[in-house]
Amino acid sequence: MEQALSPFQYNLIFNAFSFTFATMLATTLFLWLNRSQVSDRYKSAITISGLVCAIAAYHYLRIGQSWEAAFTLQDGVLEATGYSFNDAYRYVDWLLTVPLLLIELVLVMGLSREETIGKSTKLGIAAALMIILGFPGEIATDNATRALWGAASTVPFVYIVYELFKGLGEAIDRQHEGVRELIKKARLLTFASWGFYPIVYMAPFADITGPTAETVIQVGYTLADLVAKAVVGVLIYMIAVRKTQIEGAEAGGTTAEATG
Amino acid sequence: MEQALSPFQYNLIFNAFSFTFATMLATTLFLWLNRSQVSDRYKSAITISGLVCAIAAYHYLRIGQSWEAAFTLQDGVLEATGYSFNDAYRYVDWLLTVPLLLIELVLVMGLSREETIGKSTKLGIAAALMIILGFPGEIATDNATRALWGAASTVPFVYIVYELFKGLGEAIDRQHEGVRELIKKARLLTFASWGFYPIVYMAPFADITGPTAETVIQVGYTLADLVAKAVVGVLIYMIAVRKTQIEGAEAGGTTAEATG
Repeated sequence: MEQALSPFQYNLIFNAFSFTFATMLATTLFLWLNRSQVSDRYKSAITISGLVCAIAAYHYLRIGQSWEAAFTLQDGVLEATGYSFNDAYRYVDWLLTVPLLLIELVLVMGLSREETIGKSTKLGIAAALMIILGFPGEIATDNATRALWGAASTVPFVYIVYELFKGLGEAIDRQHEGVRELIKKARLLTFASWGFYPIVYMAPFADITGPTAETVIQVGYTLADLVAKAVVGVLIYMIAVRKTQIEGAEAGGTTAEATG
Repeated sequence: MEQALSPFQYNLIFNAFSFTFATMLATTLFLWLNRSQVSDRYKSAITISGLVCAIAAYHYLRIGQSWEAAFTLQDGVLEATGYSFNDAYRYVDWLLTVPLLLIELVLVMGLSREETIGKSTKLGIAAALMIILGFPGEIATDNATRALWGAASTVPFVYIVYELFKGLGEAIDRQHEGVRELIKKARLLTFASWGFYPIVYMAPFADITGPTAETVIQVGYTLADLVAKAVVGVLIYMIAVRKTQIEGAEAGGTTAEATG
């Protein structure tokens, strides 16, 4: 950052971090408390969705602390303390949560054991690779290195998109029509929320730096994480409740749990 | 604050924050531990009521920390440290909790799935809009900007009041007479506790500033939050228990859970 952030920008970013911590923790608790409302078949999907939000809550707490430690706001003037803001928390978070996000989407579909393990493994490994390959570019100081690792990271990304819309697409078409649209919505939100990350990644190429860019990047990442984790997590829960009800009704309405 | 707060005022405000943190956390634990006492139909209402108090507990912990960081009390003399008190925690809290408060009221009524989703979505979005539109006015330095955003925020507020008393009113009239009055009380408390916020919002217009006004505002916000979240949360629990008992008795008294 060549110029300094204004106190308003500094506070906005800090409040966005705090808001995200609260939302992620609240979503975790919501999902885990309501886990009893879905049938055994979908409990793992809810457990994982809650885990994703719990991991994100931890990282947003740390990100907020790191942000507070990096600057002091004395009498309305913002000064760097010398401690650098630890942006790596995001990558560490994604390394855990992005594979889990894809796995929760596979789990809520209630596929056969073989299909579940196969798709979870392929998508999970591809997601981890995507994050690992992106990181050296993120911390690179020259744009050539950044472009190289960014390109490498795009390979697993393209594979994930192909799998989500082709391989998983066929499985979605086999889902009950009562949940098919919701699952497509969850897939689309997962994919759309990812759209923000490459834009931020490529920002230095376009010389988009300075306090305003920094504010947009930090708040944007935060919103993208909120959609990808908390909003998708609640969607996964809604899908699981709906499927529990549908399958309970089909089994003769004997499932006591199917009251959502 | 032109004049300084007295040490008594400073301590009163800090203790109000600490009291509210403890009350919110206690209410959360009460609601979640007793969630097993209500039938499945009302568990989501209790989950959400607990979440609202949990989110508020987090923010009151932060508000208290920010208050401590903003002032030092040295030998009975109060001095600003230079760190500004972060009032935005309140808005961030409300952005999450006010929509959830309305949703818990809808959920405890046990309406049809369509009605529940419809009313929750409408009220939730209106509540979020009301908070988002109010914030630019709250941080504005001139009264004209404050009035403009305050007026914009009033539009969704009026819509919410209309929905609460008209649309939801019809649904309340269809409720069992054993709980109708309690639900009306919860609705009234929710609405009445909100009455404090516009008063505080408009205080700068009447030149109500200074240490006494600051003390009234901070303690007033705290009491309003306690009523809107903890008291209403316990009322929601009482309604859910009563409905569980009534519906258990109507079903032949076979529901083991209806023991409140």
